[in-house]
Amino acid sequence: MKKRNVGILLLMAAILLSWVLHPAMATSANPPPMAALLHPDNPFPPITRERDSLQPYITRPEQAKETSDKLAALEKKFGKKPNIIVLLVDDMGWGDPGCFGGGEAVGAPTPKIDKMAAEGLRLTSTYSQHTCTPTRATMLSGRLNIRHGIYRPPMYGERGGIAEEVTVASLLKRAGYTTCAVGKWHLGETKENQPQNNGFDEFFGFLGVSNIYTEWRDPYFNPEIANNPFFRGAIEKFPFSKHMVKGKRGGDLENVKLLDIPGLANCDIDFKNYSVEFIKQQADSDKPFFLWHCFSKVHFDNYPAEGYAGRSPSKYPYKDGMVEVDDIVGEILQTLKDTGQAENTFVLFTSDNGVEEDTWPDAGYAPWRGSKGTSWEGGVRVSGIVWMPGSIKAGRVSDGLVDLADFFNTSLALAGRKDLIPRDRYIDGVDQSSFFLADKGLSNRNIVYFWSDGRFHAIRWREYKIYTHIVNIGNGSYSAMGGMNQGTVETADKAFAFNLYVDPRERRPMVIRKTWLAPIMMKVRAEHMRTFQKYPAKKPVVNLE
Amino acid sequence: MKKRNVGILLLMAAILLSWVLHPAMATSANPPPMAALLHPDNPFPPITRERDSLQPYITRPEQAKETSDKLAALEKKFGKKPNIIVLLVDDMGWGDPGCFGGGEAVGAPTPKIDKMAAEGLRLTSTYSQHTCTPTRATMLSGRLNIRHGIYRPPMYGERGGIAEEVTVASLLKRAGYTTCAVGKWHLGETKENQPQNNGFDEFFGFLGVSNIYTEWRDPYFNPEIANNPFFRGAIEKFPFSKHMVKGKRGGDLENVKLLDIPGLANCDIDFKNYSVEFIKQQADSDKPFFLWHCFSKVHFDNYPAEGYAGRSPSKYPYKDGMVEVDDIVGEILQTLKDTGQAENTFVLFTSDNGVEEDTWPDAGYAPWRGSKGTSWEGGVRVSGIVWMPGSIKAGRVSDGLVDLADFFNTSLALAGRKDLIPRDRYIDGVDQSSFFLADKGLSNRNIVYFWSDGRFHAIRWREYKIYTHIVNIGNGSYSAMGGMNQGTVETADKAFAFNLYVDPRERRPMVIRKTWLAPIMMKVRAEHMRTFQKYPAKKPVVNLE
Repeated sequence: MKKRNVGILLLMAAILLSWVLHPAMATSANPPPMAALLHPDNPFPPITRERDSLQPYITRPEQAKETSDKLAALEKKFGKKPNIIVLLVDDMGWGDPGCFGGGEAVGAPTPKIDKMAAEGLRLTSTYSQHTCTPTRATMLSGRLNIRHGIYRPPMYGERGGIAEEVTVASLLKRAGYTTCAVGKWHLGETKENQPQNNGFDEFFGFLGVSNIYTEWRDPYFNPEIANNPFFRGAIEKFPFSKHMVKGKRGGDLENVKLLDIPGLANCDIDFKNYSVEFIKQQADSDKPFFLWHCFSKVHFDNYPAEGYAGRSPSKYPYKDGMVEVDDIVGEILQTLKDTGQAENTFVLFTSDNGVEEDTWPDAGYAPWRGSKGTSWEGGVRVSGIVWMPGSIKAGRVSDGLVDLADFFNTSLALAGRKDLIPRDRYIDGVDQSSFFLADKGLSNRNIVYFWSDGRFHAIRWREYKIYTHIVNIGNGSYSAMGGMNQGTVETADKAFAFNLYVDPRERRPMVIRKTWLAPIMMKVRAEHMRTFQKYPAKKPVVNLE
Repeated sequence: MKKRNVGILLLMAAILLSWVLHPAMATSANPPPMAALLHPDNPFPPITRERDSLQPYITRPEQAKETSDKLAALEKKFGKKPNIIVLLVDDMGWGDPGCFGGGEAVGAPTPKIDKMAAEGLRLTSTYSQHTCTPTRATMLSGRLNIRHGIYRPPMYGERGGIAEEVTVASLLKRAGYTTCAVGKWHLGETKENQPQNNGFDEFFGFLGVSNIYTEWRDPYFNPEIANNPFFRGAIEKFPFSKHMVKGKRGGDLENVKLLDIPGLANCDIDFKNYSVEFIKQQADSDKPFFLWHCFSKVHFDNYPAEGYAGRSPSKYPYKDGMVEVDDIVGEILQTLKDTGQAENTFVLFTSDNGVEEDTWPDAGYAPWRGSKGTSWEGGVRVSGIVWMPGSIKAGRVSDGLVDLADFFNTSLALAGRKDLIPRDRYIDGVDQSSFFLADKGLSNRNIVYFWSDGRFHAIRWREYKIYTHIVNIGNGSYSAMGGMNQGTVETADKAFAFNLYVDPRERRPMVIRKTWLAPIMMKVRAEHMRTFQKYPAKKPVVNLE
């Protein structure tokens, strides 16, 4: 037995050595031709390491050239840099849109989202952080939760922490963009954490979480509070925002309306109207814009907006919410077309975390294991679509890896100001503009890292997911759902790996015949861990102290 | 407790009574307007009961009119009835095609199948029987396995049983069609069960199952036989067909090539070449044709065809098989376009059963519970696409229910010869031509019944699946897959129901608040059971005696 272990170790060492000496990685007098190195099947493509504080990315000179040519032609035509829009749905499952296998099949058709995908690039392996606020902070800062320190959503007036980060909004502002945040913020309610103080020229939305002023007042969700005037009165006095608010850069926010049931039900229509108006106003501007449009739906509580109750074949509120989201996506894209801005606008449609199942049956759909709050595919894999007619070729589909942190770098690349990317802190995102805009673009990363509550959970490398920690979501039986904080965390001290192409639902770890993965993962993980030596991880910013 | 039960029974009786007296079901002096009755949300649409021996179907006069107008115009233009093609993939999972959520996401892109869907109607709730041969017999006879008696695939020369059925091929032949079967048959090897004696003018393919002459000779799959010359020699002498064969109506079949590893690996290319040639030959014919094209792939053993090893990003043989199937679908549709026959050809693309997982990791993908051999969604829900450019509106997606038995009636409707549908036996299929061809067509059924091994297993009614028997596929843990005969059968003597819109993976039976389902199911089930009084179920045709 002991002899065997030594043998395995020797074998691993040999593999590791051969890997380190791999032609693609080593400096060689006769390197293989670039085309071979860049073939999608090459597991070790050439890597560009710009500096210690920036995530290395795959070197893809040809698609980078095609992209800069496209962007130059576009700037010549429009006389400004491209506009950037994020359409961030809340708690939507990977499988909810029809083009991801849901839609009609789950009782909530999404023809407009599907059309967006047909006109753009559908991204099947897009990764968020494990919950809401961490992902929002990651997109705005280009940093994983372990770096920005926002490990979990702030609740009931807790401070956020985005103020300690450099947001892409503030950098795009410096690059000459008009910046606008609409909808859910949830990155901190205190003044220094509010959007108009973190790079946005204007904000119309709410500061906290969708359900903050409805669920504990609803006698069906929380009878122990709703039916207890003393308890209810006490919570009412907590220092949190209960209103839809608006404000301008540097100013104070003013209350617009209470987010009680009718307020919450219809807020996405209000947000849509605001964004549509904003887009129309920008049509004649000589400045490009950045619109950060964050839906309240389909986060619980999904009280249906006026006219939407029962609009989905399923009739469940979540599903009616998907129909509403679909309509809004359609109207925003149509506004871009109608105002002649579609060609010069990059739009990213995605969700802030994986499927949320704890409010089942009024919940989303993903075919994966686990859900929101875990690092299982169900918790972190989200639907992604990028759209930019004329620049992003219609009808593309790719499983190339995307970390939503990449939005940070990609936006600055589109704005032609990658020089603004901070150098005083580690940036985990990579520029994916050439993946998106080149007609046959490939992803500029083949690794995504997953952290949760200060623990390193997993790596996705190519089609493999390898866990160090897992959230135990029960016995895994079909009757157990569970996500958010429902499971204890377990350490996978032996290799615990899944091939997501043959086992997308992560049902059978398959290490015994994949020992070749071990030395690769050792190296991939070690490289990541080394970055924390110079740029230490951040302690949790949001906590109960 | 007892009082409570009486109360529930009384309540149920009351609901049942009100249901029976529902305006849509009762003869009334002032019936509600037809438009309201036909609204997709009406759970009890008007039903047409043509005769005792035919499955009742939903009355949809407007879409039926639109369809017959379209077909009349087409006949005027082409001077003949439309051609009919079935592209039946073997063991493919619901989720394997990209347009059903797989494709790129599972390491096997299917751009041509996705294009077929974009040009046609994608059917998200298409149901097969639980295994291969039962489904083939159901499609050809219009009858569920409990009626045609072919409960399971015949193996090693066992008799089939299709000879006792009236096949759609023989009826289309009577309607003036040229009929051709290509690829896997697996409906019986004895002379009377062979395709050229069951309605087909010609056959090129193999009679048994894909793996019959490879798997037990492969030292990795079945070492106890492959490495045992005595055992191997004994099996070799079993009276089963080991060859690809060909033959003409009424004649004998002649051997073409041995289905050893290279023979099996490349047979789908041979089949494709044959079908493409057949389609080309038919272009100038004044007779329409029916082509029954059945793939060997992606049934195990998926030895890759020449040039296909490693063609998929995943590199697994099943996935390379999906790439090959995709290429073949593309080439067949392109041939129809090139020869000017696309507009006049109805094509159905589907699978013969749900996902097969027992050969994992070289297996398919579906997001559902269970797999081939069970009546769980994983066993019976298959991807379906119908395509007929100009008649079937491009880009449609529908969750309308389809039982593959419907292919029987639909084909005869397209041929204008529904009068040929047998009256001496019960036909479970319904004519879905108006669902497919009307631009806003709805399914002509809202119920599908599932039988297995002589037991009634389940009903799908609208978005509900209600079980009487289930296959226990283990403890349901994520490490258990299991399908074919791996589970015992359990009786669900209490209601055991799932809402597939909010629980597509059948994880949480939800009866306690769905008691209103009970009286509906009682009636729906009773109506089905009554059909067996006049038309008794058939005893198993294939058995070990």
